Amino acid sequence: MTRQSDAPLHVPGGVTAPKGFRASGVACGIKKNEQLDLALLVSDVEASVAGVATTNRIKAAPIVVDQPRLKRGRARAVVINSGCANACTGAPGLADAKAMAAEAANVLGVDEGAVLVASTGVIGARLPMDRVRGGIARAALQLAATGGAAAAAAILTTDTLAKEIAVRETAGRIAITVGGMAKGSGMIHPQMATMLAFLTTDAAIAPRTLQSVLKRVVDATFNAIDVDGETSPNDLVLCLANGQAKNTPLASGPGLARFEAVMHLVCERLALMIVRDGEGASKLVTLRVTGASSTAAAKRVLLAVARSPLVKTAWHGEDANWGRTISAIGNAGVPLRPDRIALRIGPVAVVRQGVGAGSSAEAEAAIILKQREFTVTVDLGQGRGEAMVRTCDLSEDYVRINASYRS
Amino acid sequence: MTRQSDAPLHVPGGVTAPKGFRASGVACGIKKNEQLDLALLVSDVEASVAGVATTNRIKAAPIVVDQPRLKRGRARAVVINSGCANACTGAPGLADAKAMAAEAANVLGVDEGAVLVASTGVIGARLPMDRVRGGIARAALQLAATGGAAAAAAILTTDTLAKEIAVRETAGRIAITVGGMAKGSGMIHPQMATMLAFLTTDAAIAPRTLQSVLKRVVDATFNAIDVDGETSPNDLVLCLANGQAKNTPLASGPGLARFEAVMHLVCERLALMIVRDGEGASKLVTLRVTGASSTAAAKRVLLAVARSPLVKTAWHGEDANWGRTISAIGNAGVPLRPDRIALRIGPVAVVRQGVGAGSSAEAEAAIILKQREFTVTVDLGQGRGEAMVRTCDLSEDYVRINASYRS
Repeated sequence: MTRQSDAPLHVPGGVTAPKGFRASGVACGIKKNEQLDLALLVSDVEASVAGVATTNRIKAAPIVVDQPRLKRGRARAVVINSGCANACTGAPGLADAKAMAAEAANVLGVDEGAVLVASTGVIGARLPMDRVRGGIARAALQLAATGGAAAAAAILTTDTLAKEIAVRETAGRIAITVGGMAKGSGMIHPQMATMLAFLTTDAAIAPRTLQSVLKRVVDATFNAIDVDGETSPNDLVLCLANGQAKNTPLASGPGLARFEAVMHLVCERLALMIVRDGEGASKLVTLRVTGASSTAAAKRVLLAVARSPLVKTAWHGEDANWGRTISAIGNAGVPLRPDRIALRIGPVAVVRQGVGAGSSAEAEAAIILKQREFTVTVDLGQGRGEAMVRTCDLSEDYVRINASYRS
Repeated sequence: MTRQSDAPLHVPGGVTAPKGFRASGVACGIKKNEQLDLALLVSDVEASVAGVATTNRIKAAPIVVDQPRLKRGRARAVVINSGCANACTGAPGLADAKAMAAEAANVLGVDEGAVLVASTGVIGARLPMDRVRGGIARAALQLAATGGAAAAAAILTTDTLAKEIAVRETAGRIAITVGGMAKGSGMIHPQMATMLAFLTTDAAIAPRTLQSVLKRVVDATFNAIDVDGETSPNDLVLCLANGQAKNTPLASGPGLARFEAVMHLVCERLALMIVRDGEGASKLVTLRVTGASSTAAAKRVLLAVARSPLVKTAWHGEDANWGRTISAIGNAGVPLRPDRIALRIGPVAVVRQGVGAGSSAEAEAAIILKQREFTVTVDLGQGRGEAMVRTCDLSEDYVRINASYRS
């Protein structure tokens, strides 16, 4: 099979795959045991920047610092730490976040307002600023055009795997590359939670255009995943576009559409890596609701099912216990016609017209449930409202990881 | 210490403690291994009846059968099975529920419409009606004025303990007794879930008055407990009042208030037994939200915290990780003033004005968290809205129980 010459090409390098980006990751002692915990990501030239931040009403200090800087639309660097969220730390924490950006600006010799900051980890603890300052100085010395992997490792918390990707789009006259790295496993949620993602591209694109592309892509990817129904005060997706591909700035037309498609691909893959790495997750479940009276009704049913601990433990137990799904649907608070509900596990109809399809269907469904990835489809039989989410099962490991985190 | 002579008195006998009630519990083969799975509860004379049923939009067949019978306000008996919910079973399931009531009416020699029916267990399976009929016949033969305990045992599913209580009120000239039994452990929820409760009293009280008392009491007790945020199609609280105490019918004034207080006590104790028996639960947590801008806002924050798997696993881990609670509060979707939020674990303030109170406060809180029962108080500092719920932690055992249920 030959690949289509204009299909996007996966390339190595993560966030440093696009031209004109350098990155690094160091261990500065926020985490124990010399684990990488501080990352620096720098564009050689000033870049357009766009961002989508948490919907949680409690915002961590770095989010508060970034918001006015994102409005400026231009940035040079991002400094990120893991191991400490710098959230619920009051005025001192806000000063710490500003100092972290100022320190990075200082060692890089750039404007303080051109540095964005992000943190992830335990809420409520203060950053050990001496260590952070030392880490920033060392990270600046280690900046490299091959540093994407080190940066991707340094932003992780309970993740078991680093998450990075880069894709090159060659359909136009000029190749454009988009790179990305993300962290997140627990607290993943359709409104983006305890996740950070950093995207880079060498495309030339105005900040406002970049912001609208990013918003649409995030809604369709990171905002359509759910591990445990939680959001955090720190969630953030940032994108830097430095124009080093020297393309005509993307503003509309097929060029912009191709760019958005590549951004979507990068974010979709990162989002799937997050769900697959869900804390203790052993199943990746694509949950679809169709036939709802409206999109809003579809989403409510979707979330009621995706967040049901009983449904999620049944998936974990590979048990075609569709009654729990039906019960969760009934719990969504939307008007239903129970006698019209259908439920499929993979292609197997286990409920038709609100009634179980029998034990042989359940036996077939149980085979699907043994797969590591499967689809569950709820058809409400009422209208044309639809919604989809990627989620995972709830395992004993989830509890073990989260009961012992911090200790 | 002498007890106050007019304080309510705990008495043995459960649902058969009030005058004029008999009950029984038998094993008819719905469950495996000769476990008790069918209960019969009968009043010697026609009784006032009141009921509060599930808010789940999917109603099990017995709920559908009971609703018009509850409207009549008079009943003689209740037949209950465990091991099979008779939910999502379509028209045949509805016929089964009716046949179950009809069979009980037949062996008891009472009107079919005077028999209520309830089921709990796996959703989607049909009742093995031959066994159910045999069970009803045997249960009728075993009816006894000491049968409360057998009935309480026969309505259980994943419960580890039978839940029954009876209280006698002697302040008036005539003693009035209220008995109760309940089942429920997983899927417990402020809107009453996967729980059944049956209350009996020898008080004389009109059906309409009984219904309004029951509604208020259920809202304040069973509807204020939460194990895992789920509701089921089968949830039901029924109360039979047969007048055999021969009191002047309770209609208003101090007599009715005392009766409501006793009903509240009975339901509160049963609700606490359910939470303490929460699937895999090792902690009983009383969660309070105060200082909200409204009661509705307080309830939203309450549920966001009570249903957060991260908060519940931190309780399980005895970790004073208050950041997860703050994050869950921010996730509730209500406007907040983060710098006014206070959080107490037991009496220990771990967050003041949105900021952590330090490691010595956390160490004190960790001692509280080692208790089997404790209180967590969230003060939003915004207004006078309040709400309270009893809930429990999330343990590996919860996952194990629910991943393997049915098998």
